[in-house]
Amino acid sequence: MKILVLNAGSSSLKYQLIEMPAETVKCVGIVERIGMQDAIFTHEKDDKKHTEVLPILNHEIGLKKVAEALLNKELGVISSVDDIEAVGHRVVHGGNKFSKTVIVNQEVKDNIKELFDLAPLHNPANLTGIEIAENIFTSAKQIAIFDTAFHQTMPREAYQYAIANSYLDEHKIRAYGFHGTSHKYVSEKAIEYLGKKSKNLLSIHLGNGCSITAIKDGKCIDTSLGLGPANGLIMGTRSGDIDHSVVFFLMKKFNKTAEEVNNLLQKQSGMKGLTGFSDLREISEKAASGNEDCQNALNLAAYRIKKYIGAYATILNGLDAIIFTAGIGENSAIMRKLACENLDFLGINLDEKKNKVRSKEIREIQTESSKVKVLIIPTNEEIEIAKQSYNLIK
Amino acid sequence: MKILVLNAGSSSLKYQLIEMPAETVKCVGIVERIGMQDAIFTHEKDDKKHTEVLPILNHEIGLKKVAEALLNKELGVISSVDDIEAVGHRVVHGGNKFSKTVIVNQEVKDNIKELFDLAPLHNPANLTGIEIAENIFTSAKQIAIFDTAFHQTMPREAYQYAIANSYLDEHKIRAYGFHGTSHKYVSEKAIEYLGKKSKNLLSIHLGNGCSITAIKDGKCIDTSLGLGPANGLIMGTRSGDIDHSVVFFLMKKFNKTAEEVNNLLQKQSGMKGLTGFSDLREISEKAASGNEDCQNALNLAAYRIKKYIGAYATILNGLDAIIFTAGIGENSAIMRKLACENLDFLGINLDEKKNKVRSKEIREIQTESSKVKVLIIPTNEEIEIAKQSYNLIK
Repeated sequence: MKILVLNAGSSSLKYQLIEMPAETVKCVGIVERIGMQDAIFTHEKDDKKHTEVLPILNHEIGLKKVAEALLNKELGVISSVDDIEAVGHRVVHGGNKFSKTVIVNQEVKDNIKELFDLAPLHNPANLTGIEIAENIFTSAKQIAIFDTAFHQTMPREAYQYAIANSYLDEHKIRAYGFHGTSHKYVSEKAIEYLGKKSKNLLSIHLGNGCSITAIKDGKCIDTSLGLGPANGLIMGTRSGDIDHSVVFFLMKKFNKTAEEVNNLLQKQSGMKGLTGFSDLREISEKAASGNEDCQNALNLAAYRIKKYIGAYATILNGLDAIIFTAGIGENSAIMRKLACENLDFLGINLDEKKNKVRSKEIREIQTESSKVKVLIIPTNEEIEIAKQSYNLIK
Repeated sequence: MKILVLNAGSSSLKYQLIEMPAETVKCVGIVERIGMQDAIFTHEKDDKKHTEVLPILNHEIGLKKVAEALLNKELGVISSVDDIEAVGHRVVHGGNKFSKTVIVNQEVKDNIKELFDLAPLHNPANLTGIEIAENIFTSAKQIAIFDTAFHQTMPREAYQYAIANSYLDEHKIRAYGFHGTSHKYVSEKAIEYLGKKSKNLLSIHLGNGCSITAIKDGKCIDTSLGLGPANGLIMGTRSGDIDHSVVFFLMKKFNKTAEEVNNLLQKQSGMKGLTGFSDLREISEKAASGNEDCQNALNLAAYRIKKYIGAYATILNGLDAIIFTAGIGENSAIMRKLACENLDFLGINLDEKKNKVRSKEIREIQTESSKVKVLIIPTNEEIEIAKQSYNLIK
């Protein structure tokens, strides 16, 4: 069964065509800089890579470009769009409506739309992806896989805020958590790798968005993102945790609207706010060559991660392994080093040499004497999405 | 030297007259329910206690009542208001202007007023207390002791938020922390009691306001309250930490103003929001007799404390002792029990019998095998305020 996995962002479309149940990736690609005259389209099949810079003014044009590539004689993998039996869409916020993967219908789309306020950077793009895919891959089942679903096992003390119960009971205001597909995938890989005796895990997903999840016996018991994907760790452009007094203070002092402050905290803060740059590679390089703002930003980000490692190890009341994953987690040796520094009280000791080795395999980077294992596990949300899509319709 | 220590709250005036440098408390008292027809005035000298229910419609009438009692032949301790050489005022927010105790002048008062936005429940009442005291104790020096001062040793990674540097550099938006007078007092007592080898301490102040401070070698390195006294632990009426997405969501969904949401989170949330009650004794009793909202609120409050214990023990990279202090910290066996449950990973083991003993002395309540000491240390902000006032003007 051929499943197209689609991750529609605000200015990008990532895709993979995966043959299930074999989990064979037939091709992968990405449309970047959608809306620009110099958008970038990249498509890879086996070892052949096609890159093109061209105007791609909206998601529809982008996805048509993807369909063309899939059908292309040389680089393609299908002979008709009807060969695709399902399109698995990553959807960021499932609110309280979706605790599992579902086939998209009008009600599902309406629900995703109702959640725009909660994930303004993500849900609108996700819905656009679904609506365009429905028109291009007309005979495929459209399936929505929610980033919030894995976190539905959290106990009440982890998800309820200390406001009147009616906000939870009637209005469903609570912590939902995100990156669930990734946390689920890497924690299952870790348990497969370490064995089931590894009961207490922390999964640290560091990409442009960042979150950390405490996992006991395979189930999420707490996670750093909340009602929206805004709090917790310091992210590329998002502040993460911030005293809510700051929100009120910014509105009053600078006569800003709530939307302006929300935009500031979501789009102009985090690593970008602290340094002017949002790409961690650039920030790391500048820090290494003495830029104090960049050094400070790395310190702040690592300090935040350390506090969460400590809080969640305590809630787990034990710690067998921590997992670094996603773009920064898998590739930034400096961020891992800073985040694990001076944590011997928790039994975490990083081996600096092992930490510097680059690889696409699961690997351990702790010292021999470290009580806690430190793993790097490449995440694969696409395989997870394909698996869940396949299981739903097989 | 006779020093009157004054803690003016929004509807109360707490006071003590202390003889320095002997630290002898000559009398103590409180005016409660200011603004009501049935306000309560209590004054104690030696073992004699005077209680009166009467209309006290504002702070001025309240403080005049206090002065009368101080001058009273039977219960009084002075023969003229001029006997008082200093009035030491607790002021909650010192912003970036005050890193130590100061003698009040017009500039100081203006600065306290400028900080009203940051501590709307406290600074206005504190300033009222100062202005009334100036008119009653005309020959005394008025001294301001700030709750934020002890936290000025925090490193940048602990106090900076992940927003553009200009908010910190130009507008001084950062974490300040509160209850500093209490954290300073009990941590110094702990070091005196345990010896200087106890390098890593956590001071957990649980009153109507709550905060936890990480102390290394006697200095604050992190604390749970931020720019305003609103975030961190769950408090009597304040939510503590809450995803800032919730603020924006509440404003939009319920068409509330920022001020309304701020009021909701400061005055109608926390234990009161979760249970309908704000007195922890009442909540504990109802929880014991089966009230599920009260049980849930205790669980949430304890869970929050545990996460902070873990985060700060990790930042300290070691833990010698945790200190419970203030009304709830000193008196609520159930809150201490819940907050220390299942923390053996950190080396914390509470002795349930010792935990239940009530006393006004410093005491240890950990088991013999507990690696970390668990102390109850009655806080005494008044003695600390008197000491700092005396040292400033002696």
